[in-house]
Amino acid sequence: MTYSETIFAPATSVGTGAISIIRVSGPESTEIADRLITFRHGEAASSTGYSLKYGSILEESGTLDEVVAAIYRAPQSYTGEDMVEIMCHSSQYVVARLLELLGRAGARPAMPGEFTRRAFVNGKMDLSQAEAVADLIASTSESAHRLAMNQLKGNYSAKLSDIRGKLIEIASLMELELDFSDEDIEFADRDRLAALLDEAVSHIDGLCASFRDGNAIKNGVPVVIAGNVNTGKSTLLNALVGDSRAIVSDIPGTTRDTVEDTMIIDGILYRFIDTAGIRETSDKVEKMGISRTLDRISEADVIILVLDALAPLKELEKSVSSILPRLSTGQELICVRNKVDLFDAIHPEEFPVKDRSYNIFDLKYPAFGTYDIGTEDLARKLCLASDGKFPAAAVSGEIIDISALTGEGIDKLLDRLSKGRRGRFTSEEILVTNARHANALRRASESIARVRDALSGHVPTDLLSQDLREALREIGSITGEITDEEVLGEIFGRFCIGK
Amino acid sequence: MTYSETIFAPATSVGTGAISIIRVSGPESTEIADRLITFRHGEAASSTGYSLKYGSILEESGTLDEVVAAIYRAPQSYTGEDMVEIMCHSSQYVVARLLELLGRAGARPAMPGEFTRRAFVNGKMDLSQAEAVADLIASTSESAHRLAMNQLKGNYSAKLSDIRGKLIEIASLMELELDFSDEDIEFADRDRLAALLDEAVSHIDGLCASFRDGNAIKNGVPVVIAGNVNTGKSTLLNALVGDSRAIVSDIPGTTRDTVEDTMIIDGILYRFIDTAGIRETSDKVEKMGISRTLDRISEADVIILVLDALAPLKELEKSVSSILPRLSTGQELICVRNKVDLFDAIHPEEFPVKDRSYNIFDLKYPAFGTYDIGTEDLARKLCLASDGKFPAAAVSGEIIDISALTGEGIDKLLDRLSKGRRGRFTSEEILVTNARHANALRRASESIARVRDALSGHVPTDLLSQDLREALREIGSITGEITDEEVLGEIFGRFCIGK
Repeated sequence: MTYSETIFAPATSVGTGAISIIRVSGPESTEIADRLITFRHGEAASSTGYSLKYGSILEESGTLDEVVAAIYRAPQSYTGEDMVEIMCHSSQYVVARLLELLGRAGARPAMPGEFTRRAFVNGKMDLSQAEAVADLIASTSESAHRLAMNQLKGNYSAKLSDIRGKLIEIASLMELELDFSDEDIEFADRDRLAALLDEAVSHIDGLCASFRDGNAIKNGVPVVIAGNVNTGKSTLLNALVGDSRAIVSDIPGTTRDTVEDTMIIDGILYRFIDTAGIRETSDKVEKMGISRTLDRISEADVIILVLDALAPLKELEKSVSSILPRLSTGQELICVRNKVDLFDAIHPEEFPVKDRSYNIFDLKYPAFGTYDIGTEDLARKLCLASDGKFPAAAVSGEIIDISALTGEGIDKLLDRLSKGRRGRFTSEEILVTNARHANALRRASESIARVRDALSGHVPTDLLSQDLREALREIGSITGEITDEEVLGEIFGRFCIGK
Repeated sequence: MTYSETIFAPATSVGTGAISIIRVSGPESTEIADRLITFRHGEAASSTGYSLKYGSILEESGTLDEVVAAIYRAPQSYTGEDMVEIMCHSSQYVVARLLELLGRAGARPAMPGEFTRRAFVNGKMDLSQAEAVADLIASTSESAHRLAMNQLKGNYSAKLSDIRGKLIEIASLMELELDFSDEDIEFADRDRLAALLDEAVSHIDGLCASFRDGNAIKNGVPVVIAGNVNTGKSTLLNALVGDSRAIVSDIPGTTRDTVEDTMIIDGILYRFIDTAGIRETSDKVEKMGISRTLDRISEADVIILVLDALAPLKELEKSVSSILPRLSTGQELICVRNKVDLFDAIHPEEFPVKDRSYNIFDLKYPAFGTYDIGTEDLARKLCLASDGKFPAAAVSGEIIDISALTGEGIDKLLDRLSKGRRGRFTSEEILVTNARHANALRRASESIARVRDALSGHVPTDLLSQDLREALREIGSITGEITDEEVLGEIFGRFCIGK
């Protein structure tokens, strides 16, 4: 299939840049460029690929612009078609007028993602690579970039192709049996088939499981800042991202909506989510905010539980007992004790410096100092404080003393954050970053599990084959070996215009 | 003078585009590109100009990106130096990392406007052309674009060069006289000198006077929407720009700050400025708003005076008497009668359709219908209504009946707006668009006027020559024949990075 239409779109965002690029792709690209641009030396239509041509766009009312056109010849281009990229002055007027003139010269505006779609159709890349292009453009952190680049370079496709090969091997083994035993279906090498199926499922499930990390890398690791009202959560958000992102006041319940900001630490993007403080309240808006906080906690990868160093134990217990039951395996809880800058202001004589190591759960008023409580120890104590309502495994590391106001301890907190991910998120491992892929893999795994179960019982091979074909189709849909117009429309419709 | 450093900067704005361009210019451009990029075929350093090269940027952690580099060879480039434009995926991460790598490879980040400054220093364009590049990029309307393009193509420089030539001719005539008459200075051809000076002044003053239109074309024609409170000014702004730009309510005094929005009509950019309604008030903020309204009226090119069709004559008179004294020659006043949609709702029986042509100034309650009042007639009546406080010449055309709410009459209003400018703003005439130029021209004109005056009296030729040299320097400063480091810094410092 080749496209007969020539399409165009701006490939750079309209802003305050110096140059804009307008992309033209399709069989008539160079002819259309010649209709529009008076080149200084020769025509675009007779140019070789990978050359630049200087020219003017002349209108009756004068020169529209002087431009440089980059000429690409099929198949040595992004789309695999003839292409011309017109570089003009980045003026709103010039770009708008140039697009108008291209339309009149015989090309039509490209749909979102249409250039990449043509690249896919023309065999320049498979579907998962095309999706990686969008991810690459959107990537802001080193880890997200590496994932997208790995996928773009085909490492992910190779892994899927490997799995697909295994499934085809199983299918042919099953077909073989089918040829010999017509009525009473009995597989000769049942064990080998079962082993092969188990191996395929294990690979697929491994990829499925990587989606949590892949998604966190791509969209940012969700870190929820939670705690009682007025513990300084918004101040902590501002301290973390180094900005006045959230409104801060000493009025309890200032934050109602969740406030987000991102920051890159050690090449990994974090999405910090400031939440409404948890307390009993009759304020309707605040209640909604608190309910939203609890939802965010469930979805987070990391929960920073902010404790107020000066708050009485009862408050602390409330905080713990409302938040910890929401946690589940795989989430990381980091406890910070905020406002340590206020220690010197109160009761300095009551707490001599050398003697400040009290455990927050043994004192009515917590003191300052370093807590050297191991994970299990802390978990046990938090567990006690919340009547055993939360899983002990959820709590990691020691409590970190910070002052969100002065910045004390923030480095330590950031370090703790990145420590949990540094190795895991920067490996060369192939991770699934796309919900579409994760869903397809999950469905493929379910189909194969059905085949595996059926192998033990006596079901018609027809049904087994059908499930296996289903699994193959799901895997093929990721790289686009199996395509569906609707799926393609959805994938490329999310691209930006000009890509 | 040639530059020894190689500079780099992104030339496209970072946004949601598909491609980003990073510009590199200077003697080491191709060598630096080779250090950074592994090209598929040969090195950039051995490439000819106007060619494209495909390559990968490889790092220890993997491929950063696959890019296309456009190679330009001095002097056939924007800056007149060797240049490489690297086209990469428009990802925040990739662009940031590429800039970092370029810095490590031996180039340094460009200052704002440094590429264009090099183009100026290398003789690729004069100073007024360099300034036109910035104007061209900023232009959003056809007329602003044409002005910038004319200036970029050197038409403006040619005109200035012409004037400069005339001044040099005068100067040499004066020097000639000086050679022959040593003591008693008496010019032989005094009349010819005077005529030449008059001609030069007339050209320069003509350019000076064009600055009002040139500035309006470049920055938008300022159109102030003024009137009493609650006459529907904000609704009119929204109707004009087709958007909910200004907050609208039926509470008099809703608009306090001036609210602006722009729209292009017939290729000309208009800046509509909604203002606080004028009334006696004790509200401090509103008072400041009203004072600001009166300032805006003084600065406007066009004032749309919004009258409330249902308001009593007394209100109308107040409106007129507070606004009209602020007007001056050269400003255009357009009177609109708003809320005509309400006519059908009130007293329909009292005003039979055929008989609705009353004059607003003859009735306690104005009626509807078409007013066919000529400029002079209206001016005379407005003059009467304001006790003769405003110049009759300020009022143009008939009153336009509109409903900002339903959109009735808006087309007519827009048509009136563009009618006044269509011919004037779309001619091929050379207009001054730059305050720096206008000031230089004004100072040049003053210097020449001094020479002209002195010619009549007996002053030493030294002083005459000095004034003439001053005028030459001012004209020369516009195109950059005479340059000053500080002026250059100021001009190019306002450019965007990458230009």
